[in-house]
Amino acid sequence: MRKKIFFTPGPTQLAPKASFFIKKAIEDDIGSISHRGEIFKKIFKEAIFNLRKILNLPETHEIAFLSSSIEAMEVIILSMVKKKSFHFINGAFSKKWYLMAKNLGKESDYFEFSQSNSILNAKITKKPELLCLTHNETSIGMMVPMDEIYQIKKKYYDIPLALDVVSSFPYPKIDFNFVDILFFSVQKGLGLPAGLSVIVVNKKYSEKTSGGFHDFKSLFSKARIFQTPETPNVLGIYLLAKITKEIIKKNVEQIRKEIDIKSNLLYNYFSSSLIGRPFIKEFCYRSKTTIVIDVGNRTDFIVKKLEKEGFIIGKGYGQYKENHIRIANFPQHTISMIKKLIGIINKIEKSF
Amino acid sequence: MRKKIFFTPGPTQLAPKASFFIKKAIEDDIGSISHRGEIFKKIFKEAIFNLRKILNLPETHEIAFLSSSIEAMEVIILSMVKKKSFHFINGAFSKKWYLMAKNLGKESDYFEFSQSNSILNAKITKKPELLCLTHNETSIGMMVPMDEIYQIKKKYYDIPLALDVVSSFPYPKIDFNFVDILFFSVQKGLGLPAGLSVIVVNKKYSEKTSGGFHDFKSLFSKARIFQTPETPNVLGIYLLAKITKEIIKKNVEQIRKEIDIKSNLLYNYFSSSLIGRPFIKEFCYRSKTTIVIDVGNRTDFIVKKLEKEGFIIGKGYGQYKENHIRIANFPQHTISMIKKLIGIINKIEKSF
Repeated sequence: MRKKIFFTPGPTQLAPKASFFIKKAIEDDIGSISHRGEIFKKIFKEAIFNLRKILNLPETHEIAFLSSSIEAMEVIILSMVKKKSFHFINGAFSKKWYLMAKNLGKESDYFEFSQSNSILNAKITKKPELLCLTHNETSIGMMVPMDEIYQIKKKYYDIPLALDVVSSFPYPKIDFNFVDILFFSVQKGLGLPAGLSVIVVNKKYSEKTSGGFHDFKSLFSKARIFQTPETPNVLGIYLLAKITKEIIKKNVEQIRKEIDIKSNLLYNYFSSSLIGRPFIKEFCYRSKTTIVIDVGNRTDFIVKKLEKEGFIIGKGYGQYKENHIRIANFPQHTISMIKKLIGIINKIEKSF
Repeated sequence: MRKKIFFTPGPTQLAPKASFFIKKAIEDDIGSISHRGEIFKKIFKEAIFNLRKILNLPETHEIAFLSSSIEAMEVIILSMVKKKSFHFINGAFSKKWYLMAKNLGKESDYFEFSQSNSILNAKITKKPELLCLTHNETSIGMMVPMDEIYQIKKKYYDIPLALDVVSSFPYPKIDFNFVDILFFSVQKGLGLPAGLSVIVVNKKYSEKTSGGFHDFKSLFSKARIFQTPETPNVLGIYLLAKITKEIIKKNVEQIRKEIDIKSNLLYNYFSSSLIGRPFIKEFCYRSKTTIVIDVGNRTDFIVKKLEKEGFIIGKGYGQYKENHIRIANFPQHTISMIKKLIGIINKIEKSF
């Protein structure tokens, strides 16, 4: 059987060397080593070192690990918010974060934005303790320009800002003068098996506590000695250390350029395709990493045709399940893979 | 280099077929499949099915997954306890659970027990909402006989009882008439890479909510449709499904018998060894799965000697770091491995 290529928004195609490193992990007894021992600490340190380099992270911020981005959302709310957070909502994942805060008993507020109603129009009153923003809304393929995010932070400079880059990392080049908290998962742009997420917190806030075993205080007091409060996903952290090294080798700037090239290829194709049109019309809000195309009600047809050729793409999210297709454009998706995908979609188009 | 054998209390020696299944997972694209798709649901269902069989779990209880046992401890406290839990403490891990409840703002109580002061001596007043008990205290190698646990539950029949079997599963045969909540991790007696834990909850309690994304209500509403609230450790759940099938094939009763045989071999050896004596004197409280030996101040010497031969054992826990050695006796440790280990220890003894 032909090996499949996954263009799903995540879990997705693994990084080219992921399988190699998984096999190496078995040889190196990574599944058996103690999470309190020196070998583990070295792996943890290496992962942090590489991530700092990729993020170009200043000394003002520190890094720790959690199990999922949903956990990161909760840990952030619990650690940072006593009464009220403020959420910018434009789709399922940003909404999930808001609802999570409400479920946790917070009196949170939100501003609903879209490609025709920018986050800059939000009026934030009754000073919240935290601003929550999702950089790339995977559910609809909308990405907020970093500059708009910085403008928000400049306007509300004394309110900490938490940014979800779950499905955009490592694409955005982030100025950490304007971002206090950041998180992402490994099963998207890093191309690793799911079960691990990364959280970055400004040291101003990393002593905050809610009493939970994963609150900032507990998490970072351990992270500073290259440890975790629990027995963590050791294999996941090992793979993260290895894959981030590969990213540094390749050069993250080069990766960003390629993501631009590949997203241009896709958007150009769909600008005049019978298959469908990009769901997001405003160019500046179109996601570079999750290309969402409105295909009428032909989602199933297209997804199945592509699957037959070994190309796995995502269906629409939630209400758009039957009307959208979603194509991930992560570092592990090469230009040649994207060109092949477009070729097959073009064949499907011609069969119409 | 000779392949090491890990007798550490966990993470520890992987199950014999773990490496095989990890490689198979790569072939089967387990790192790329969607956690919302049918393949994942089938894997989830299979893992649950196998665990139910191993636990001989009645229909009164249901199963879900978390990321670690520390997370399970927290989720249990948050879901079950508004004001007060009651903890039986005899070592580091049972104490951690109690301190966690206190950190979360609960007015929890405890009873400190030992081999000379049984849990049956506890006086539980001002009715707590939950009894918390650690079956096998890995820190000191003490295991509570199931019968004592059942007696506690019979005495306080209307208070739910949560049992930590993190480092004893699958050894104890559990009567779920007396155990309401149970949890364990995969990196101990299942011999899998860390990053996943299993929680079992009586349906009487599985609707309880704290508002968290992993509270019982959220967790089990997803588990019932073979899903998780977050993107989970898909690879971990896949490996769990595979390894539990192996356990069923071998027969869990046979595994329990072998654990008895192996622990007898170890305790018999240390009953007259110059190396040291079992830390727990009372036979009925000696752990079958974590054999802790008081070796004076020779821990480092013994651990290093064994390491040279490829046998990795645990040092003492906390205050006993320099005075104890800890030897795990899990299903993946064969009789022949244990005999070899004893042989090497015997050689070390003769060099004294």
